Amino acid sequence: MDPEAFLDVANQVVKLKMFPYFDIAHCVLCALHVREDLGAGAQQFSRKHPMACWLSYMLVVFAGGMVANGLLAEPILAPLKNTPQLIVATLVWYVIFYTPLDIGYKIGKFLPVKVVCSAMKEIYRCKKVYDGVTHAAKLYPNAYLIMIIIGTLKGNGAGFTRLIERLIRGVWTPTAMEFMQPSFYTKSCLVASIIFILDKKTELISAPHALVYFGIVIFFVYFKLSSILLGIHDPFVPFENLLCALFFGGIWDSMAKIFGRGQIKEGESKDAKKTN
Amino acid sequence: MDPEAFLDVANQVVKLKMFPYFDIAHCVLCALHVREDLGAGAQQFSRKHPMACWLSYMLVVFAGGMVANGLLAEPILAPLKNTPQLIVATLVWYVIFYTPLDIGYKIGKFLPVKVVCSAMKEIYRCKKVYDGVTHAAKLYPNAYLIMIIIGTLKGNGAGFTRLIERLIRGVWTPTAMEFMQPSFYTKSCLVASIIFILDKKTELISAPHALVYFGIVIFFVYFKLSSILLGIHDPFVPFENLLCALFFGGIWDSMAKIFGRGQIKEGESKDAKKTN
Amino acid sequence: MDPEAFLDVANQVVKLKMFPYFDIAHCVLCALHVREDLGAGAQQFSRKHPMACWLSYMLVVFAGGMVANGLLAEPILAPLKNTPQLIVATLVWYVIFYTPLDIGYKIGKFLPVKVVCSAMKEIYRCKKVYDGVTHAAKLYPNAYLIMIIIGTLKGNGAGFTRLIERLIRGVWTPTAMEFMQPSFYTKSCLVASIIFILDKKTELISAPHALVYFGIVIFFVYFKLSSILLGIHDPFVPFENLLCALFFGGIWDSMAKIFGRGQIKEGESKDAKKTN
Repeated sequence: MDPEAFLDVANQVVKLKMFPYFDIAHCVLCALHVREDLGAGAQQFSRKHPMACWLSYMLVVFAGGMVANGLLAEPILAPLKNTPQLIVATLVWYVIFYTPLDIGYKIGKFLPVKVVCSAMKEIYRCKKVYDGVTHAAKLYPNAYLIMIIIGTLKGNGAGFTRLIERLIRGVWTPTAMEFMQPSFYTKSCLVASIIFILDKKTELISAPHALVYFGIVIFFVYFKLSSILLGIHDPFVPFENLLCALFFGGIWDSMAKIFGRGQIKEGESKDAKKTN
Repeated sequence: MDPEAFLDVANQVVKLKMFPYFDIAHCVLCALHVREDLGAGAQQFSRKHPMACWLSYMLVVFAGGMVANGLLAEPILAPLKNTPQLIVATLVWYVIFYTPLDIGYKIGKFLPVKVVCSAMKEIYRCKKVYDGVTHAAKLYPNAYLIMIIIGTLKGNGAGFTRLIERLIRGVWTPTAMEFMQPSFYTKSCLVASIIFILDKKTELISAPHALVYFGIVIFFVYFKLSSILLGIHDPFVPFENLLCALFFGGIWDSMAKIFGRGQIKEGESKDAKKTN
Repeated sequence: MDPEAFLDVANQVVKLKMFPYFDIAHCVLCALHVREDLGAGAQQFSRKHPMACWLSYMLVVFAGGMVANGLLAEPILAPLKNTPQLIVATLVWYVIFYTPLDIGYKIGKFLPVKVVCSAMKEIYRCKKVYDGVTHAAKLYPNAYLIMIIIGTLKGNGAGFTRLIERLIRGVWTPTAMEFMQPSFYTKSCLVASIIFILDKKTELISAPHALVYFGIVIFFVYFKLSSILLGIHDPFVPFENLLCALFFGGIWDSMAKIFGRGQIKEGESKDAKKTN
């Protein structure tokens, strides 16, 4: 592929307008997520408690913005001020939950539709991460941790509001914390945030911004599709294991085990040398 | 009744000063609510944990303002800045919980006292809903959903903070979400918010503002009193059932049932026609 | 001791720079707290879930600032904007959790180290309470309750975020509310806040500000050390019992008991007289 044409495509991806098509794709996947989270009783629940169903769905749709706003002292409800977006979201919810004979749901679950929606959602996610990092960088130009947190939350807000989302539906699952077993989305948003910060704040990445952005979009879409189509779920696992082995106790713990209790003195003197 | 005199009364109701009498009525009912929520062990609890008791009571009293502020990025503690109001609230709490031989509680529960307090609280509630809608409309002139949410929360904040209120007292009841089974107050505040928005933003309601306001006050007081005196609890139920039957699956589900599995093809083609 | 020299010392304590030594002491104790809260499985947990471990530790370290900011509509994440402080906190966490053969943890738990850290943390705590009261007083010059709340939260934030801290680690203990059984820290921060307010807003305390501040520091350090070394846990208990007996039902309840059901009429008339 011609590098210039490639850069052109990248520039166009950066400037993509999100409303309404990408919003619809995002909403479809959110509605499917809520419906699957409800399990077998989803249809009954949606008939009995339409308000709780709609509210928890809205929380999922606008999770990233709401949580990020809450943490940055901006109005939590602000993402709801865009009335056309609200109407689109509500229509999608209605179609997925209430169409006769569940046609809406069946279409949404139809593999090609799901694949297209997922790809679009990943493009949207990348934009959200980038917006989050940029916004945080404007507020706190030197607070890298805040940029990472906001970028990650904007990208995968729904993961972090899952507890509240379920609580709205009267279900409480305290062990389902995202922090305990971060999903692939959380990890990839975290990595994307770090890359955006490196691109913005340092000279380490010499590629033009559009290319960096496009690269992350491709990464997001590629792994999403391979997750749906091939069942590969988390390419970060080997890196994590390596990191844990190197820094979070793995090596030291094994060494302590090898030397055992009998040779504890030797082990201690060795370790003491290393900590100096 | 003379229409002009009626309008005069309405105008006076709009301008009613709330502090201190309406505040006292509100506080009395909040204290009774906390005490009843504590059940049989209320007195013992208030002796052992006065601080938790007082804090959860304060949360109930100022719930609407606090939650609305939290969602609009205004200081959650701001409702506590009015020291005279705080002192009145604390005194009411003391009288209901700690007077000798429980005289305060018995007076508060005495039917005529309760009726008067309830009527006053409903007038107060109407003012809060109106203030909430107005405030949200100032911040987001086109965000109707935000106005409705803030109006409803200001009107029936205590319903939405119940989980936190109980948590302060060390009790966790995740299934008691207001969204799952919205109380009559939530529904009526929602309807009142919508009417206020129609009055403010559209030309649909031609009556003068004072009359609209007064009408809602009468509606609130009337249903509150009929709930206390006659045991009518929720005049919205028939409308809800109708709504559910029309829009949230009722009809389609019944049709799908009637046509059954045997004639599923016919049903599908029929539905397909209707969705066009 | 020479009074002037004493005032000199007091003035120096007021102006003490907190970063980095006091921060380190604070972080060490926070890390020990998280580790002890994890119980026997602490080491395993820190190996399996380093992110949840780190996040819940960070919440403990910055609890006071975050909660106070959340309640005053300031950015909850703002305490994380200070990157050097973050790095120090992360290093301390790493040393306590991951050093080979647990040397970091063992050093942290070594009594003399713990005593020094505790004393430093109490000096830090006093500064935080004072800063909290001052900050709230700037925002709401007449809202004494808000000043007390913010002062107490800044001083003992970790007590109030315990539920969230545990939730991040996937554990939910709704009965562990600080309000139900306030710890000594909460009570002493509350008292310190009230003294600071009296010093700032009234003429009741004629001593110079530095002396008042120093007095509170001494009080904090003294009781912390006596708690570690002598096992005295809560010098407020007798005062609380007195308060409860006087104001929160103690006397009235006993009297009602003494007069009993048989003489209830007499009791009632007596009480009625007293309430006049």
